[in-house]
Amino acid sequence: MAEVIDIDDPADPRVDDFRDLSSADRRPDLPGRRGLVIAEGVVVVQRMLDSRFAPTALLGVEKRRQELADDLADTDVPYYRASAEVMAEVVGFHLNRGVLAVARRPAPLALDEVLEKARTVAVLEGVNDHENLGSMFRNAAGLGADAILFGDRCADPLYRRAVRVSMGHVLRVPFASVPEWPHGLDTLRRRGFQIIALTPNPAAVNLAAAMTGERVALLLGAEGPGLSEDAMRATDVRARIPMSPGTDSLNVATAAAMAFYERVRT
Amino acid sequence: MAEVIDIDDPADPRVDDFRDLSSADRRPDLPGRRGLVIAEGVVVVQRMLDSRFAPTALLGVEKRRQELADDLADTDVPYYRASAEVMAEVVGFHLNRGVLAVARRPAPLALDEVLEKARTVAVLEGVNDHENLGSMFRNAAGLGADAILFGDRCADPLYRRAVRVSMGHVLRVPFASVPEWPHGLDTLRRRGFQIIALTPNPAAVNLAAAMTGERVALLLGAEGPGLSEDAMRATDVRARIPMSPGTDSLNVATAAAMAFYERVRT
Repeated sequence: MAEVIDIDDPADPRVDDFRDLSSADRRPDLPGRRGLVIAEGVVVVQRMLDSRFAPTALLGVEKRRQELADDLADTDVPYYRASAEVMAEVVGFHLNRGVLAVARRPAPLALDEVLEKARTVAVLEGVNDHENLGSMFRNAAGLGADAILFGDRCADPLYRRAVRVSMGHVLRVPFASVPEWPHGLDTLRRRGFQIIALTPNPAAVNLAAAMTGERVALLLGAEGPGLSEDAMRATDVRARIPMSPGTDSLNVATAAAMAFYERVRT
Repeated sequence: MAEVIDIDDPADPRVDDFRDLSSADRRPDLPGRRGLVIAEGVVVVQRMLDSRFAPTALLGVEKRRQELADDLADTDVPYYRASAEVMAEVVGFHLNRGVLAVARRPAPLALDEVLEKARTVAVLEGVNDHENLGSMFRNAAGLGADAILFGDRCADPLYRRAVRVSMGHVLRVPFASVPEWPHGLDTLRRRGFQIIALTPNPAAVNLAAAMTGERVALLLGAEGPGLSEDAMRATDVRARIPMSPGTDSLNVATAAAMAFYERVRT
């Protein structure tokens, strides 16, 4: 059972990991930053407790502690109990969700480990928007994609906003980096993945016809610039989602959802 | 050619329609509010100019006027030219996009008119999030859905945030209200639409198998509560997007995108 510790003083050093979140977790991946992973709200905290991101502490109001009682029964992580006002002073803004958990970053997963049993993976290049990353993980979890891989120039998926938008699925859906981008895609090819570039180019094959592999890796670039020519050349086929002329390309997380859906639709 | 009028004084009454946007356009649909429709940025302004929402004025910096020169060649709508600083004082916040257009609301489209040539429509119940509404219109435009219909308890699709998130497609994709919800769905049935409720219920038929009509109307409810039982009963079939157990339902705009995609995938 989690130990309950009352916090009355917002300056209490025991809750330092939760302090000034709106500034503290900007680029937590950079040297000198704390690199903490923050879960917000009951559902995301539950997903963190059930993930490889073992929380070291929780901070929340009494009501949320009660809602989490079953989840906390088997852990000895401390629950710092505070009023909503004290919480707001610690984190630096008012937090509707009423509970936070904090975890250290574990070692990254190895690409081989992530690919071992995967059938459907997305591989991202230049996706540097935390909201899009969060939505991508949420869609992957919902539609049964097995992993998200990061090529070049992607944002940090463990940023607080990405964790929140993903509804905690960034803590559950495995992810790994592809080294030596884009040549590292050969690792996927050797494992039998069909490597498909998603492009709005009308000359490309329809996604439904292009996706023939037993294992597939779907390459997606950011809205606007799309995939680099180098990445395109490293793929087996260029595929498109049929789009209406004169419209914008779909949001990258939505485009990924179409492709994940294509894998499970029947 | 649009007349160019320089605005040096933020208090100039000629730009009153652009004043204090962050508070002025909250619930513009309510009595006593101004009910203006605001387009932000070059692309959305272009879409407004090419829509049934005829702008009455533009407010922007010189650079954006040049970018819009071709679009403004055939209109006589005034372009109020201002510095970024004066613009910020008028609208109440700094606006990256550098140009705004304002239109009065035209009369709503009639349901019959919207349905006339439609093959694929979404019908929403309880979708009260402006960002979701905006994404819904963007996805409809991208994937060739013909119209969005509003049942009960939906937010205003012409709210500024919805227009922005839709990338202006809310001005282009026709929408109308379904009267006497949910019985008004009979209007669609009489026109030969297959009426499909989207539900996360695992007992429902897979969407791909359920969607057999030449014309289809896809009913979607808000994340969380979903469709009301009354609305469900007014449909022909309940269909599901195959989802992984233990995950959340998809975002409503993403779920709609899957259904739109299913209509155009081959």
